[in-house]
Amino acid sequence: MLHDPNHLYIFDTTLRDGEQVPGCQLTTSEKIEIAKDLESLGVDIIEAGFPVSSPGDFQSVVELSKAVDDVIICALTRANKNDIDVAAEALKYAKRPRIHTGIGASDMHIKYKFNSTREDILARAVEAVKHAKSYVEDVEFYAEDAGRADLAFLAQMVESVIAAGATVVNIPDTNGYCLPDQYGAKIKYLTEHVKNIDQAIISAHCHNDLGLATANSIAAVQNGARQVECTINGIGERAGNTSLEEVAMILQVHKQAFGGLSSNIDSKMFTYISRKVSEMMRMPVQPNKAIVGKNAFAHSSGIHQDGFLKHRENYEIIRPEDVGLDEAGIILTARSGRHALKHHLERLGYELDKDQLAVTYERFLVVADAKKDLCDEDLKALMQS
Amino acid sequence: MLHDPNHLYIFDTTLRDGEQVPGCQLTTSEKIEIAKDLESLGVDIIEAGFPVSSPGDFQSVVELSKAVDDVIICALTRANKNDIDVAAEALKYAKRPRIHTGIGASDMHIKYKFNSTREDILARAVEAVKHAKSYVEDVEFYAEDAGRADLAFLAQMVESVIAAGATVVNIPDTNGYCLPDQYGAKIKYLTEHVKNIDQAIISAHCHNDLGLATANSIAAVQNGARQVECTINGIGERAGNTSLEEVAMILQVHKQAFGGLSSNIDSKMFTYISRKVSEMMRMPVQPNKAIVGKNAFAHSSGIHQDGFLKHRENYEIIRPEDVGLDEAGIILTARSGRHALKHHLERLGYELDKDQLAVTYERFLVVADAKKDLCDEDLKALMQS
Repeated sequence: MLHDPNHLYIFDTTLRDGEQVPGCQLTTSEKIEIAKDLESLGVDIIEAGFPVSSPGDFQSVVELSKAVDDVIICALTRANKNDIDVAAEALKYAKRPRIHTGIGASDMHIKYKFNSTREDILARAVEAVKHAKSYVEDVEFYAEDAGRADLAFLAQMVESVIAAGATVVNIPDTNGYCLPDQYGAKIKYLTEHVKNIDQAIISAHCHNDLGLATANSIAAVQNGARQVECTINGIGERAGNTSLEEVAMILQVHKQAFGGLSSNIDSKMFTYISRKVSEMMRMPVQPNKAIVGKNAFAHSSGIHQDGFLKHRENYEIIRPEDVGLDEAGIILTARSGRHALKHHLERLGYELDKDQLAVTYERFLVVADAKKDLCDEDLKALMQS
Repeated sequence: MLHDPNHLYIFDTTLRDGEQVPGCQLTTSEKIEIAKDLESLGVDIIEAGFPVSSPGDFQSVVELSKAVDDVIICALTRANKNDIDVAAEALKYAKRPRIHTGIGASDMHIKYKFNSTREDILARAVEAVKHAKSYVEDVEFYAEDAGRADLAFLAQMVESVIAAGATVVNIPDTNGYCLPDQYGAKIKYLTEHVKNIDQAIISAHCHNDLGLATANSIAAVQNGARQVECTINGIGERAGNTSLEEVAMILQVHKQAFGGLSSNIDSKMFTYISRKVSEMMRMPVQPNKAIVGKNAFAHSSGIHQDGFLKHRENYEIIRPEDVGLDEAGIILTARSGRHALKHHLERLGYELDKDQLAVTYERFLVVADAKKDLCDEDLKALMQS
């Protein structure tokens, strides 16, 4: 097959599924800048746009194809000839082009969106893959709303499109509906019931409507998926897509649980690229966002600060420097304990014995109850008063 | 036992684990306002503070105990006599008081935080529960860093504290380390290996360092936990705690998968309480936050808008009104299709035939590529030009 089944492919769709969010639109030059960063980050595939959707999107796919060398450039289409023709045209400068075509797989989509039948949808799927294959070697097929599709029909569809030449089969949980055990079971079923599944890799494309996109993607990988579709900061329509940084760090922290499966991601770039995407796309990242939130590595409670200062692994499973941050924050609030206060006072040059610390701590608590959190100047004032 | 094993208890710790976040500190009167809203929302337990940690926290527990009638008020302590005495004193006005005491359970915490042995820690745990029990009937025990603890030792600890009178045993994944299958297996092990487990309920307390807090909590419930500890908007130290709104909506959307297990949560209050907590605690919610983010119900891509307008269940698993929002948004951008444009033009009183729509759509795309997203005034200008 075209892709290595022992590698976890990171498919970034920040510039397609992310970029279609209201207010997030980028100019082509901004997209090029982010694409080059994604290339440095180590993603395997960049979904560059949906060329038929607008002239601007078409042009972006053209320019990204020119700008990027090592990464696969992917263009989205619906399962029709014109979409695919336009995508192939937009990809003509790509060194490693991929066409990503597909159609609804759930009965709800087949009936209410396409007003069609399973047989007709299957025929359109196969035809689209064959047409895409006439342009490029690497064809990904998405079975839209697979999360709610009938399993046997989904398996039949997957088998048919692989036979037609699909190199990647994407099983999207389009509406963010599945629980992790359900989504994992779906992937497992496909690995067991699709005869030619060894000729393609399975891709997980999850949405975060119930807050489960990352967990569902991980469940998919545990059950045989070898590509995860994700975005920087988890941006995307509605509640967003799977967060690239969460998936990559889970793989890094839990190496053994994944049997040594690896990605090419350089996690030290996360802080930089998260901030850049957030600013360019005008999509704030909340302070309590995993991995890249402002507070993600900030310890504030007394119990935690105390334990952290004694042995940082007590409360730290990822080192801040591993995601490109300088240092974990120990922040002083009314919830901080004596050890944290001592730590900061020593940092500022004050050495206190046990009794002095006890007295200072009582005064500190009064100030902290009033002031929310204390900076170095507050501590100096406390020591001088 | 004291608690109903067929009910899912929602334990809100917005005012304790949430409030200890840098910059989130509330005054006592603000806490009372939020506590009353949490009572209306239908939470079963409010963790009101850590009384020994500061005079302000002590006073908040006193005032919340007075202000709230139907909900259990819980106060946090470490496993020592003084902490528990102070908590009991702070809870004296509570109609339904609970003391939440506990100690580290992982060898890392036992060695590096307590410089102690398993035997000594076990004795301290039992003693703390007995002491708390001398004040209140309802005692919750937390086995800190249970996520990394030796399973057999954890089971021994849980059995001992239940024998000592604990009514709830909290198995925190303190550092947000576990994968959902690992955390679920831990809970299952306890239900199978702790002889007296039927005399208490198991509680899940997860952190979001890897973006898995909600998934881990759900895995715990699927494996026998009957209390979930969570916060509004998932706020909390570092990457935060489990999001209350995500857990509640998962239970609502997947009723059958949970065998009819129910909570008392009124999801229609989510939008209101999320915004209130965000403003009061100065903790912004990112637009792509599940359930309560600004974009959580906004459809923008052409494919999605088209499907949504044909049959809303195509792209909607939760009705916006179920979380207290008025209407899902169909937003016009360069990624919108003809159907979405038609929908908005009709809303504004413009009726177009197919050819007129085709021409207008081409002009719309040119404007949309330049303007990012279009409001009603833009559409009127488009129609008048």
